[in-house]
This record gives sequence, structure tokens and C-alpha cells, in this order.
Amino acid sequence: MTELTRRALLGAAAAASAAAVMPNATQAAAPPAGSQAAGWYRYKVGTIEVTVVTDGANTFKFTDTHVLNKTRAELNAALEAAYYPKDLMTTPYNPIVVNTGGKLIVFDTGTSEAAFANSKGRTGQFQTNLKAAGIDRNAIDMVVISHFHGDHINGLLTPDNKPAFANAEILVPSVEWKYFMDDGEMSRAPKGRMETVFKNLRRVFDALGRKVTQYDAGKEIAPGVTSVATPGHTPGHQSFVLASGNSKVFVQGDVTHVPWVFVRNPGWHGFYDQDGPMAETTRRKVYDMLAAERMQIQGFHYPFPSLGHVEKSGSGYREIPVPWNPTI
Amino acid sequence: MTELTRRALLGAAAAASAAAVMPNATQAAAPPAGSQAAGWYRYKVGTIEVTVVTDGANTFKFTDTHVLNKTRAELNAALEAAYYPKDLMTTPYNPIVVNTGGKLIVFDTGTSEAAFANSKGRTGQFQTNLKAAGIDRNAIDMVVISHFHGDHINGLLTPDNKPAFANAEILVPSVEWKYFMDDGEMSRAPKGRMETVFKNLRRVFDALGRKVTQYDAGKEIAPGVTSVATPGHTPGHQSFVLASGNSKVFVQGDVTHVPWVFVRNPGWHGFYDQDGPMAETTRRKVYDMLAAERMQIQGFHYPFPSLGHVEKSGSGYREIPVPWNPTI
Repeated sequence: MTELTRRALLGAAAAASAAAVMPNATQAAAPPAGSQAAGWYRYKVGTIEVTVVTDGANTFKFTDTHVLNKTRAELNAALEAAYYPKDLMTTPYNPIVVNTGGKLIVFDTGTSEAAFANSKGRTGQFQTNLKAAGIDRNAIDMVVISHFHGDHINGLLTPDNKPAFANAEILVPSVEWKYFMDDGEMSRAPKGRMETVFKNLRRVFDALGRKVTQYDAGKEIAPGVTSVATPGHTPGHQSFVLASGNSKVFVQGDVTHVPWVFVRNPGWHGFYDQDGPMAETTRRKVYDMLAAERMQIQGFHYPFPSLGHVEKSGSGYREIPVPWNPTI
Repeated sequence: MTELTRRALLGAAAAASAAAVMPNATQAAAPPAGSQAAGWYRYKVGTIEVTVVTDGANTFKFTDTHVLNKTRAELNAALEAAYYPKDLMTTPYNPIVVNTGGKLIVFDTGTSEAAFANSKGRTGQFQTNLKAAGIDRNAIDMVVISHFHGDHINGLLTPDNKPAFANAEILVPSVEWKYFMDDGEMSRAPKGRMETVFKNLRRVFDALGRKVTQYDAGKEIAPGVTSVATPGHTPGHQSFVLASGNSKVFVQGDVTHVPWVFVRNPGWHGFYDQDGPMAETTRRKVYDMLAAERMQIQGFHYPFPSLGHVEKSGSGYREIPVPWNPTI
């Protein structure tokens, strides 16, 4: 009894498409708004309050060695399967702010306010969105860094190289600090990207007078917040378990980069994994656990608001976003 | 070389959990915020600007006949597979506002401002979020109704039964109007829920002096907006294709109710489908088309912001949310 046919649907759409390019005799009273909603989202883990505060997302043309053990064609096939355009990699950056009741903690800092202009506003949004979320940067008690790549640490500084969180203790992984602050390691690092990583983190931490607190893996670094060693992406890379009551969330840092590529294909080695095989081993262990426990994951490079479940799928995994809750 | 083990992860989480219930010696300077971000999100379809404006989401205990041709146990299994708690159905309500360049159009209206207090703020959020999105309700040129269920039409009225969109033309499906405004049909309708539907729509449209414009299926009802007959959920139920340039989005209304049940199981007949078999036929035709065309879908009962792709999966389909774009 339905009138719906493929021809009717596509024919209708074609007619509409043609009509849309014709000049309109009348204009709407309201012009297009052109602006996006402030990028923050709040949820609870027991009594812990988490606010996801996006730093934005950028899109790059990728090189033939973006995934070291796969070809451009294979990466493009993965992108097409996930409804992304070919030859372009979109990367979201999503720090979180955790209120434990005892501490107000930022986890990773995004690309920095200075990146806003350079990216034409696509990234460097963290401080603006933090303010929109009603959080005063000066009320931050602690900043916890998962690892020393620029998109996680650059936001520690304002554009004039002052501390972005004036009253916060800065926590850094002890293994990461020992490795990356070693000038011998820097001198032995490959030129190019790795050298840039070493130099950039000196730029950031020197501006802070190297005033940081080192933390170890497997420690409760704040009430309900436990660090977990997840090496490979960098030598001292850390993840975190937030736990309160019966609720837990795994804050993964960069155990995977964007999920539509590296969760679905955990054996693919992105160029940003310093030790690809170790990163893969860590990734599979973490994701096997998350899938078995049905534990929620908060992923820095997942699309905002970056909270999901993971399940086994084929030879890899699939991320299932947690649905947006319009209340808290 | 990794220290990560299942025992370490779960042990750490257990330790953290125990710690979290201990009283904290120090309190954070910042109290928990407790508030959620305003629920709106903007994207473009060619030159058309779409603003998704959530009305909220509510959660109900469901009856044994929630899905007429499946048991409670089968529905609970589907919910568990989608990481929802058993015996509870969460229903998001997500109207959209479309700026065609010629018209500013609301598609469906949500549960109404009056529902805000009744639901303790879980629904009835549309007007608040519309304002947060920078859209003046009095600038709305047109309201297009997909079908006559309360969660789509009740927001046409303010709590004191005045027009919620003072300057808007109200468009209703001609088949829907003919069927539901027929007092003979009302007299023959089953008592209980169906009778309530008939009475409620008279309440709403009588308050508007029955001043509506009827529209037919397969027509361009505004520049770039074409109606498509998708009957079954109700006799005159309509969907819409938004088309501009090379871009298209299918605005489905209630071709499916919540996707994690009825997209994944298109043969399941929710009690709200007036003609279950016809609704299923429509659903399969639409979703086969969307999957084949890789066309985006905007779903009223999808989780905010309710934009996705669909693909075939097993004997049904799977919805793939379009990732949040922090810019527009």
C-alpha cells in the first residue's frame, strides 16, 4: 500500500536538488546562523563528575606512511567504510575535566590557544569551551598529562608562554619524564618528527620552569583516579581508571588514535606510535579487557563527546558511542 | 614489556573504588557543576543549514506488549546488546530547524514546554534549547509535522494553549489530516491509546482554530525539501529529503523508533506502529535505499544529534552516528 519506491525517493531528491540552486524569490527573515554549539558534555561516574571539553578537530592530507604497515589504498578503504572522504585524516582532540569532589583535574590539554588562529579555529578551542562549561581555568587544582606529544601538552601554556592553569599542580608520568628529558635519548632520536617531539616538550616544560610532579603507574593519583601503564605509543604513556561506587570509565589517552581506523584495525601501526608492536600489544590487552568487562572508554581522539563501549568485531573491535544524555 | 595485566587493571580499579567512598580530607574549590550543555548541533546540507534542537529524552518502564511480536526477554536482550539497562526504554526526542535560505522551518515540535515540569526536566526542552541556539521562535516561518502523535505535535502549543510559533504556517500531511480528523474513524478506533491519540490531536489543532495547510507526499514543500510518503507508523506518516548541491539527508520522522531496537531489528513491531506490517515494509524499503545510497539519515528518536548512516547488518541494519563536527 505504500507509495514509496526507489524511483520516487531519488526522483524527488533530484527535483529538490535542482530547485535548490534556483534563486529564491523570498529570503527568510532569519539569516543562516553559521555557528556551532559550545563543545562540552557532562556525565557522572558514581559521584565523580566528568566534563568532556573539546579542543576541536582538524583535517589533514595524509602521507603514504601514515600507517606504517598498510598502504594508502588500505587506509582509504578503512576511511570509506567509516564514511570519511579519502586521502584526508580527521583528528578530534578531546581533553576532559574531572571533579572528584576533592580535586578539579584536567586530563591532557589539547593543542593550545595559540593553535586556534593557525588552524582557522578548527582546534585550540579548549579554553573557550571550558569557559562555556562554566569552569574557571584558575579553579583547576591539577593537570594530569598522559604522555608528551604536543596535542596533549601544548595547552599547558598560554600564547605568551605563561602557565595556562595558574593554580594547578602539573602531573607527568615518571617513565615519560625520565626518557624524554634525557638529553642522551634526544641526541640518539631520529631527526625529523622525533626530534621535534623532544624539542617541543622542552619548550613547554622549560617555560614552566620544569616544575612538575612525577607520578608512577598503578597509583591512585587522586581520589578515584588510578594510573595504568599503557606503553608503546610513547615509552611512558599512561591511561587512567575513574572509579566510584559501581561505575568505572577507562580514560585511554592514545591507546588508539582515531577509532574508525585503529579500534577497527588494532594491528595497524600509525606513525605516531613510537614502538608499533608494543603499542599493538597494549591496545589488544586493553580492548580485550574493556570488551570483556563492558567497561566504558573515554578516548582523547574519539569524536566528541568521546565516550563509548567497545566490542569485538571481526579481527578487531568496534566502538559504540554512548548516547548523549540531555540531562545529567 | 608492558606492565599492563588484567589483574593490574581490575585491581587498580577496585582500589580506586574503595578509596572513592572514603571521606575526603580536602574539598575542591569548585563544586560539581551539575548542569548539562544546551542540546543543539548545527550542520550543512549544501547551502541548507540544519540545527538539531533536542527536546530531551525520557526513560520509562515498558510493558510486556511494548514490542507486539517479541517477548520482554527478547527486548531485554536487545537492550543489553546496546548497553541499556533492562526493563527500561529510553526515548530521545529530536526536532530539527532547517534554514533553506528561503524559509526557516521547524520539523516536528517535541513534547511541549508543558511537559518540562511533568518529566522533571527530562523532556520539554525544545524552546529552551532553541533559544540557546540563537533562534527566535517568532522568526520561524513554517512548522512541518510528519505525523499526529503527541511527541511530534504537542509543542505546537504553549502551556497556556497559544500558538508556540506565532508567525509560522503549520503544514500537516493531507492523508493524516483526512484520516485523523474524521470523526467516524475516531468512533471506530480502539479505546485506550488510539482514542487518546485522536482526542489529543483535536485538543492541539482546535486550539489553533484548525488553521493548517495540508501537504501531499512527493511534493517540494519548501526549497530543497521534498515530502516522501512513509506510511505504517500512522496512515499519513511523512518523511523528507533535504537536498542541496550534491548533498542529501533523509529526515525519517518515525520510520523507526529508537535505532538500537528497531533499526537493528526492523521486523519488530512497536505498539506505536498503527499498522505493524506496513510500517515494517516501509522501514525495510527506506533502509535498503539509505544503505545502498550511503545517504545520511536524521532520526527523530535517534540519540542527539541524531544524524547517521545506516548499513546492512545481519538480518537488519546498524546505525553509524556521524561524528560531531566542532565547527560548521
